[in-house]
Amino acid sequence: MNKLLIVGTVAFDAIETPFGKTDKILGGAATFIGLSASFFDVDAAIVSVVGDDFPQEYLDLLTNRNIDISGIEIVKGGKTFFWSGRYHNDLNSRDTLETQLNVLADFKPVVPEKYKDADVVMLGNLHPLVQMGVLDQLTQQPKLIVLDTMNFWMDCALPELLAVIKRVDVITINDEEARQLSGEYSLVKAAAKIHQLGPKYVVIKKGEHGALLFEGKEIFFAPALPLEEVFDPTGAGDTFAGGFSGYIAQSENISYQNMKNAIIHGSNLASFCVERFGTERMINLDKEEVYDRLKQFRSLTQFDIELE
Amino acid sequence: MNKLLIVGTVAFDAIETPFGKTDKILGGAATFIGLSASFFDVDAAIVSVVGDDFPQEYLDLLTNRNIDISGIEIVKGGKTFFWSGRYHNDLNSRDTLETQLNVLADFKPVVPEKYKDADVVMLGNLHPLVQMGVLDQLTQQPKLIVLDTMNFWMDCALPELLAVIKRVDVITINDEEARQLSGEYSLVKAAAKIHQLGPKYVVIKKGEHGALLFEGKEIFFAPALPLEEVFDPTGAGDTFAGGFSGYIAQSENISYQNMKNAIIHGSNLASFCVERFGTERMINLDKEEVYDRLKQFRSLTQFDIELE
Repeated sequence: MNKLLIVGTVAFDAIETPFGKTDKILGGAATFIGLSASFFDVDAAIVSVVGDDFPQEYLDLLTNRNIDISGIEIVKGGKTFFWSGRYHNDLNSRDTLETQLNVLADFKPVVPEKYKDADVVMLGNLHPLVQMGVLDQLTQQPKLIVLDTMNFWMDCALPELLAVIKRVDVITINDEEARQLSGEYSLVKAAAKIHQLGPKYVVIKKGEHGALLFEGKEIFFAPALPLEEVFDPTGAGDTFAGGFSGYIAQSENISYQNMKNAIIHGSNLASFCVERFGTERMINLDKEEVYDRLKQFRSLTQFDIELE
Repeated sequence: MNKLLIVGTVAFDAIETPFGKTDKILGGAATFIGLSASFFDVDAAIVSVVGDDFPQEYLDLLTNRNIDISGIEIVKGGKTFFWSGRYHNDLNSRDTLETQLNVLADFKPVVPEKYKDADVVMLGNLHPLVQMGVLDQLTQQPKLIVLDTMNFWMDCALPELLAVIKRVDVITINDEEARQLSGEYSLVKAAAKIHQLGPKYVVIKKGEHGALLFEGKEIFFAPALPLEEVFDPTGAGDTFAGGFSGYIAQSENISYQNMKNAIIHGSNLASFCVERFGTERMINLDKEEVYDRLKQFRSLTQFDIELE
């Protein structure tokens, strides 16, 4: 089984949407990535940090999904990273109400020996120095390195971010962030500029409007599945990244053609994530549901105009 | 050759975008629909009205595309409908600067005898009473009636609009209009409510974010082609409708499967329309370019995950 190394936050979230609000619940980029990747046959491991306020049952939940958590440091007397946010009525934008870095402030990632030769590395959204710190511990070049990031790091750690972007094969980023990073409004032009920063593949996430994959002049598009109700978008981008990297790790095929499939798998899994608060839907999801919805993606997008 | 009857405005537009502005140029829903439909093997005719200020060369332009203009009334001493608008920087929204109804104010459509048994009828955006007036003149039920409309008629002629919506097979409408018409934010729920108003097929246009086709629980999605530069969105929705109805008329196949293809053809043609001001790109477009870009649509959307 191929090894997928995931770095990112494991955290508490408190979320408000037009449909309700939660107390502190399980969240974090690495959590969503790991849960999503666990739908593929991969040997996945998370590198992260939590405080000793983090419930054992949450850790067990990851272990039960066959996710290796030996790289999750538990800081004695420390408090787990906490994020709280409120979504606007259209669910397309949100305000951050509170961010407590806590144990994340001094986090030095340690990659378990067994995963230093990972086949695929998924760098979830986190300080670019932490992402870089993980890459520096690898003993061989992975088949594929995927990086997810956000505007926050462009604002306050751009040189470090650019340094890590230079070393990755795939970057996943949302549309507004792609515009900020490139200075281009057109996503086609933005992707071309981001290519020049290093990544051979650029994935631009457009939320409910789907995701674009760019490789040079080639473009592939995966829609988001139109849903009756989007309940909570938290973690959708991470779930997408987890599906993408999990599928690539399983299939051992990093061709552009196969990345198209990976984008569809990522979009498919993300479509479940938004149906409930936080990780709730991903935890109660089974493989059959995932497979059935892939068929919906096919009928949603496939047509049969005859072309030479 | 199958007959496609088009009703809609033939007009002057004056457009401002971040890229420049035009004087009075050729515009109007029926103009864009006709030009777009002319890329298919159909016997198309336009029912509309202009003043005698309308240049003969514009009429010739339609005739040269084999579009029958005997249903375009020329009002002596009358002035042609004029619309002027300014697009915002993101090109996703616009302000109407001026609307002069002119000859459109008293327009009574007259369907030429030859087209009263049209195979497909495309009701372009216009007062719903005019759209209804066209349907009332038909001597046999068309294979398909498609209606395009806009929020303006929902605001000021809703009962008349609902009456004509009840009689059509397909409605094309943009996302905000679908929300207004249905009172539902979710486009899936909006489409379900609009189905109940009459149309078996609901097409929701999302501009740069593509278009959705709904038939009951079935959903198909066509992306807009990601472009380096969108120059002027004017007429894109009409061009989409012209490609959709033109392809359906040519293929004589009104199955849901074939409507998927029609949506792709519509999206394909619309992707050219936005590349220049007004009708400029459509007028200088050849069939080979159209065919080549269809291949781009295929590589943009088609994937090969194996599913039973």
